[in-house]
Amino acid sequence: MAEINHQVGIKAPPEKIYALLTTNDGLSKWWTNDISGAGEVGSIIQFRFNGGGPDFSVTKLIPNKFVGWKHSGNMPESWMGTEILFELKADETQTFVRFTHSNWKEASDFMAHCSTKWAVFLLSLKGAVENGTGKPFPNDIHIDHT
Amino acid sequence: MAEINHQVGIKAPPEKIYALLTTNDGLSKWWTNDISGAGEVGSIIQFRFNGGGPDFSVTKLIPNKFVGWKHSGNMPESWMGTEILFELKADETQTFVRFTHSNWKEASDFMAHCSTKWAVFLLSLKGAVENGTGKPFPNDIHIDHT
Repeated sequence: MAEINHQVGIKAPPEKIYALLTTNDGLSKWWTNDISGAGEVGSIIQFRFNGGGPDFSVTKLIPNKFVGWKHSGNMPESWMGTEILFELKADETQTFVRFTHSNWKEASDFMAHCSTKWAVFLLSLKGAVENGTGKPFPNDIHIDHT
Repeated sequence: MAEINHQVGIKAPPEKIYALLTTNDGLSKWWTNDISGAGEVGSIIQFRFNGGGPDFSVTKLIPNKFVGWKHSGNMPESWMGTEILFELKADETQTFVRFTHSNWKEASDFMAHCSTKWAVFLLSLKGAVENGTGKPFPNDIHIDHT
Protein backbone atom coordinates (compact mmCIF):
# COMPACT_ATOMS: atom_id res chain seq x y z
CA MET A 1 0.00 0.00 0.00
CA ALA A 2 1.21 3.52 -0.79
CA GLU A 3 0.93 6.50 1.51
CA ILE A 4 1.42 10.24 1.73
CA ASN A 5 3.40 11.73 4.63
CA HIS A 6 3.84 15.37 5.58
CA GLN A 7 4.93 17.44 8.56
CA VAL A 8 4.62 21.14 9.30
CA GLY A 9 5.49 23.09 12.46
CA ILE A 10 2.99 25.70 13.66
CA LYS A 11 3.69 28.42 16.20
CA ALA A 12 0.64 27.79 18.37
CA PRO A 13 -0.49 25.50 21.17
CA PRO A 14 -2.02 22.16 20.13
CA GLU A 15 -5.53 23.11 21.25
CA LYS A 16 -5.68 25.94 18.74
CA ILE A 17 -4.76 23.54 15.91
CA TYR A 18 -7.04 20.77 17.16
CA ALA A 19 -10.04 23.11 16.83
CA LEU A 20 -9.19 23.61 13.15
CA LEU A 21 -9.22 19.84 12.59
CA THR A 22 -12.43 18.97 14.38
CA THR A 23 -15.08 21.62 13.67
CA ASN A 24 -16.87 22.77 10.51
CA ASP A 25 -15.81 26.34 11.15
CA GLY A 26 -12.18 25.35 11.79
CA LEU A 27 -11.84 23.03 8.79
CA SER A 28 -13.38 25.66 6.52
CA LYS A 29 -10.50 28.01 7.33
CA TRP A 30 -7.92 25.88 5.50
CA TRP A 31 -9.26 23.02 3.32
CA THR A 32 -12.53 24.03 1.67
CA ASN A 33 -15.11 26.63 2.52
CA ASP A 34 -17.97 24.08 2.18
CA ILE A 35 -17.87 21.66 5.11
CA SER A 36 -20.59 20.04 7.19
CA GLY A 37 -20.98 17.19 9.65
CA ALA A 38 -17.83 17.58 11.77
CA GLY A 39 -18.22 16.28 15.32
CA GLU A 40 -17.47 13.39 17.64
CA VAL A 41 -16.24 9.91 16.70
CA GLY A 42 -18.75 8.42 14.26
CA SER A 43 -19.57 11.76 12.62
CA ILE A 44 -19.36 11.89 8.83
CA ILE A 45 -17.72 15.06 7.57
CA GLN A 46 -18.70 16.19 4.07
CA PHE A 47 -15.98 18.13 2.28
CA ARG A 48 -17.30 19.80 -0.88
CA PHE A 49 -15.48 21.46 -3.78
CA ASN A 50 -17.92 22.98 -6.26
CA GLY A 51 -20.58 20.53 -5.10
CA GLY A 52 -18.56 17.29 -5.19
CA GLY A 53 -15.98 15.89 -2.82
CA PRO A 54 -15.14 13.27 -0.25
CA ASP A 55 -16.86 12.19 2.95
CA PHE A 56 -14.79 11.04 5.91
CA SER A 57 -16.00 9.37 9.07
CA VAL A 58 -14.28 10.39 12.27
CA THR A 59 -12.64 7.24 13.71
CA LYS A 60 -10.50 8.49 16.58
CA LEU A 61 -10.12 11.68 18.59
CA ILE A 62 -7.66 12.35 21.42
CA PRO A 63 -8.14 16.00 22.36
CA ASN A 64 -5.19 18.18 21.29
CA LYS A 65 -3.20 15.10 20.21
CA PHE A 66 -4.76 12.95 17.52
CA VAL A 67 -7.44 13.07 14.81
CA GLY A 68 -8.28 10.01 12.68
CA TRP A 69 -10.60 9.83 9.68
CA LYS A 70 -11.60 6.98 7.38
CA HIS A 71 -12.86 7.64 3.87
CA SER A 72 -16.60 7.06 3.55
CA GLY A 73 -18.70 7.16 0.39
CA ASN A 74 -17.35 6.72 -3.13
CA MET A 75 -15.72 9.93 -4.26
CA PRO A 76 -13.00 10.19 -5.43
CA GLU A 77 -12.90 6.47 -6.22
CA SER A 78 -9.18 6.05 -5.59
CA TRP A 79 -9.59 7.41 -2.05
CA MET A 80 -11.92 4.54 -1.11
CA GLY A 81 -10.44 2.63 1.83
CA THR A 82 -7.92 5.35 2.63
CA GLU A 83 -7.33 6.82 6.07
CA ILE A 84 -6.11 10.21 7.21
CA LEU A 85 -4.32 10.84 10.49
CA PHE A 86 -3.20 14.08 12.11
CA GLU A 87 -0.86 13.75 15.09
CA LEU A 88 -0.01 16.86 17.11
CA LYS A 89 3.32 16.98 18.96
CA ALA A 90 4.29 20.14 20.84
CA ASP A 91 7.77 21.26 21.82
CA GLU A 92 8.94 24.54 23.39
CA THR A 93 8.57 26.64 20.25
CA GLN A 94 5.92 25.04 18.06
CA THR A 95 3.41 22.25 17.52
CA PHE A 96 4.27 19.75 14.81
CA VAL A 97 1.41 18.40 12.72
CA ARG A 98 2.36 14.96 11.41
CA PHE A 99 -0.01 14.04 8.58
CA THR A 100 -0.54 10.64 6.97
CA HIS A 101 -2.95 9.70 4.16
CA SER A 102 -2.50 5.94 3.96
CA ASN A 103 -3.89 2.78 2.40
CA TRP A 104 -3.73 3.91 -1.25
CA LYS A 105 -3.82 0.95 -3.65
CA GLU A 106 -0.92 2.38 -5.66
CA ALA A 107 1.43 5.35 -5.98
CA SER A 108 -0.47 6.67 -9.01
CA ASP A 109 -0.05 10.06 -10.68
CA PHE A 110 -3.27 11.08 -8.92
CA MET A 111 -1.78 10.10 -5.55
CA ALA A 112 1.29 12.19 -6.40
CA HIS A 113 -0.99 15.13 -7.27
CA CYS A 114 -2.84 14.71 -3.96
CA SER A 115 0.48 14.55 -2.08
CA THR A 116 1.53 17.95 -3.43
CA LYS A 117 -1.94 19.34 -2.82
CA TRP A 118 -1.93 18.12 0.79
CA ALA A 119 1.31 20.03 1.36
CA VAL A 120 -0.40 23.15 0.06
CA PHE A 121 -3.38 22.65 2.36
CA LEU A 122 -1.19 21.92 5.42
CA LEU A 123 0.63 25.19 4.78
CA SER A 124 -2.83 26.75 4.50
CA LEU A 125 -3.59 25.28 7.96
CA LYS A 126 -0.31 26.79 9.24
CA GLY A 127 -1.25 30.19 7.83
CA ALA A 128 -4.79 29.98 9.19
CA VAL A 129 -3.59 29.22 12.73
CA GLU A 130 -0.64 31.60 12.84
CA ASN A 131 -2.10 34.72 11.26
CA GLY A 132 -5.50 34.05 9.71
CA THR A 133 -4.09 33.68 6.19
CA GLY A 134 -5.42 30.21 5.34
CA LYS A 135 -6.20 29.56 1.69
CA PRO A 136 -9.09 27.10 1.61
CA PHE A 137 -10.77 26.16 -1.68
CA PRO A 138 -11.73 28.11 -3.83
CA ASN A 139 -8.81 30.36 -2.86
CA ASP A 140 -6.28 27.52 -2.73
CA ILE A 141 -2.88 27.66 -4.42
CA HIS A 142 -2.97 25.91 -7.81
CA ILE A 143 -0.32 23.30 -8.47
CA ASP A 144 -1.17 22.76 -12.15
CA HIS A 145 -3.32 24.12 -14.99
CA THR A 146 -6.02 21.45 -15.10
CA MET B 1 10.76 0.95 1.61
CA ALA B 2 9.02 4.31 1.91
CA GLU B 3 8.85 6.96 -0.77
CA ILE B 4 7.76 10.51 -1.49
CA ASN B 5 5.62 11.26 -4.55
CA HIS B 6 4.62 14.61 -5.99
CA GLN B 7 3.25 16.06 -9.22
CA VAL B 8 2.98 19.63 -10.47
CA GLY B 9 1.86 20.95 -13.87
CA ILE B 10 3.94 23.73 -15.42
CA LYS B 11 2.85 25.93 -18.31
CA ALA B 12 5.99 25.50 -20.40
CA PRO B 13 7.49 23.05 -22.88
CA PRO B 14 9.51 20.16 -21.38
CA GLU B 15 12.86 21.48 -22.67
CA LYS B 16 12.52 24.62 -20.58
CA ILE B 17 11.96 22.53 -17.44
CA TYR B 18 14.66 19.99 -18.31
CA ALA B 19 17.24 22.79 -18.34
CA LEU B 20 16.30 23.67 -14.76
CA LEU B 21 16.90 20.06 -13.69
CA THR B 22 20.25 19.46 -15.38
CA THR B 23 22.43 22.57 -15.06
CA ASN B 24 23.98 24.40 -12.09
CA ASP B 25 22.37 27.65 -13.23
CA GLY B 26 18.96 26.02 -13.69
CA LEU B 27 18.96 24.11 -10.39
CA SER B 28 20.03 27.24 -8.51
CA LYS B 29 16.83 28.98 -9.62
CA TRP B 30 14.58 26.75 -7.48
CA TRP B 31 16.34 24.46 -4.94
CA THR B 32 19.39 26.18 -3.48
CA ASN B 33 21.55 29.01 -4.71
CA ASP B 34 24.78 27.02 -4.04
CA ILE B 35 25.09 24.23 -6.62
CA SER B 36 28.05 22.79 -8.48
CA GLY B 37 28.90 19.74 -10.53
CA ALA B 38 25.75 19.31 -12.64
CA GLY B 39 26.39 17.61 -15.98
CA GLU B 40 26.11 14.34 -17.88
CA VAL B 41 25.45 10.87 -16.44
CA GLY B 42 28.12 10.14 -13.83
CA SER B 43 28.39 13.76 -12.69
CA ILE B 44 28.12 14.38 -8.96
CA ILE B 45 26.00 17.39 -8.12
CA GLN B 46 26.73 19.15 -4.83
CA PHE B 47 23.73 20.88 -3.31
CA ARG B 48 24.71 23.13 -0.42
CA PHE B 49 22.64 24.90 2.23
CA ASN B 50 24.79 27.13 4.45
CA GLY B 51 27.78 24.97 3.61
CA GLY B 52 26.31 21.49 4.19
CA GLY B 53 24.01 19.41 2.06
CA PRO B 54 23.63 16.34 -0.12
CA ASP B 55 25.52 15.12 -3.15
CA PHE B 56 23.70 13.26 -5.91
CA SER B 57 25.20 11.36 -8.81
CA VAL B 58 23.36 11.66 -12.11
CA THR B 59 22.27 8.12 -13.07
CA LYS B 60 19.99 8.61 -16.06
CA LEU B 61 19.13 11.39 -18.49
CA ILE B 62 16.63 11.26 -21.35
CA PRO B 63 16.54 14.77 -22.81
CA ASN B 64 13.29 16.59 -22.01
CA LYS B 65 11.76 13.44 -20.49
CA PHE B 66 13.63 11.95 -17.56
CA VAL B 67 16.23 12.84 -14.93
CA GLY B 68 17.51 10.27 -12.41
CA TRP B 69 19.80 10.88 -9.43
CA LYS B 70 21.19 8.57 -6.75
CA HIS B 71 22.30 9.90 -3.40
CA SER B 72 26.07 9.97 -3.04
CA GLY B 73 28.10 10.81 0.05
CA ASN B 74 26.79 10.66 3.60
CA MET B 75 24.65 13.72 4.32
CA PRO B 76 21.92 13.71 5.45
CA GLU B 77 22.40 10.17 6.74
CA SER B 78 18.80 9.07 6.24
CA TRP B 79 19.05 9.99 2.54
CA MET B 80 21.79 7.40 1.98
CA GLY B 81 20.67 4.91 -0.66
CA THR B 82 17.77 7.06 -1.80
CA GLU B 83 16.99 7.93 -5.41
CA ILE B 84 15.27 10.90 -6.99
CA LEU B 85 13.44 10.78 -10.32
CA PHE B 86 11.85 13.55 -12.33
CA GLU B 87 9.62 12.45 -15.23
CA LEU B 88 8.32 15.08 -17.64
CA LYS B 89 5.04 14.43 -19.46
CA ALA B 90 3.61 17.09 -21.75
CA ASP B 91 0.00 17.50 -22.83
CA GLU B 92 -1.66 20.32 -24.82
CA THR B 93 -1.63 22.87 -22.02
CA GLN B 94 1.21 22.01 -19.66
CA THR B 95 4.10 19.74 -18.76
CA PHE B 96 3.61 17.55 -15.72
CA VAL B 97 6.62 16.97 -13.50
CA ARG B 98 6.22 13.64 -11.72
CA PHE B 99 8.66 13.49 -8.81
CA THR B 100 9.70 10.48 -6.75
CA HIS B 101 12.20 10.32 -3.87
CA SER B 102 12.34 6.59 -3.15
CA ASN B 103 14.19 3.96 -1.17
CA TRP B 104 13.81 5.53 2.28
CA LYS B 105 14.33 3.00 5.07
CA GLU B 106 11.23 4.22 6.89
CA ALA B 107 8.44 6.80 6.82
CA SER B 108 10.08 8.80 9.61
CA ASP B 109 9.12 12.28 10.80
CA PHE B 110 12.15 13.54 8.89
CA MET B 111 10.87 11.89 5.70
CA ALA B 112 7.50 13.57 6.28
CA HIS B 113 9.29 16.91 6.72
CA CYS B 114 11.21 16.34 3.48
CA SER B 115 7.99 15.41 1.66
CA THR B 116 6.39 18.75 2.54
CA LYS B 117 9.62 20.58 1.71
CA TRP B 118 9.84 18.88 -1.71
CA ALA B 119 6.33 20.15 -2.49
CA VAL B 120 7.52 23.66 -1.65
CA PHE B 121 10.59 23.31 -3.89
CA LEU B 122 8.57 21.84 -6.79
CA LEU B 123 6.25 24.84 -6.58
CA SER B 124 9.42 26.94 -6.57
CA LEU B 125 10.44 25.14 -9.79
CA LYS B 126 6.99 25.93 -11.23
CA GLY B 127 7.35 29.60 -10.34
CA ALA B 128 10.91 29.77 -11.68
CA VAL B 129 9.88 28.34 -15.05
CA GLU B 130 6.60 30.19 -15.48
CA ASN B 131 7.52 33.67 -14.35
CA GLY B 132 10.95 33.79 -12.75
CA THR B 133 9.59 33.68 -9.20
CA GLY B 134 11.43 30.61 -7.91
CA LYS B 135 12.27 30.60 -4.20
CA PRO B 136 15.52 28.65 -3.81
CA PHE B 137 17.28 28.46 -0.43
CA PRO B 138 17.89 30.81 1.41
CA ASN B 139 14.67 32.42 0.17
CA ASP B 140 12.61 29.23 0.44
CA ILE B 141 9.24 29.07 2.15
CA HIS B 142 9.54 27.84 5.74
CA ILE B 143 7.32 24.97 6.80
CA ASP B 144 8.22 25.08 10.49
CA HIS B 145 10.10 27.15 13.10
CA THR B 146 13.18 24.99 13.55
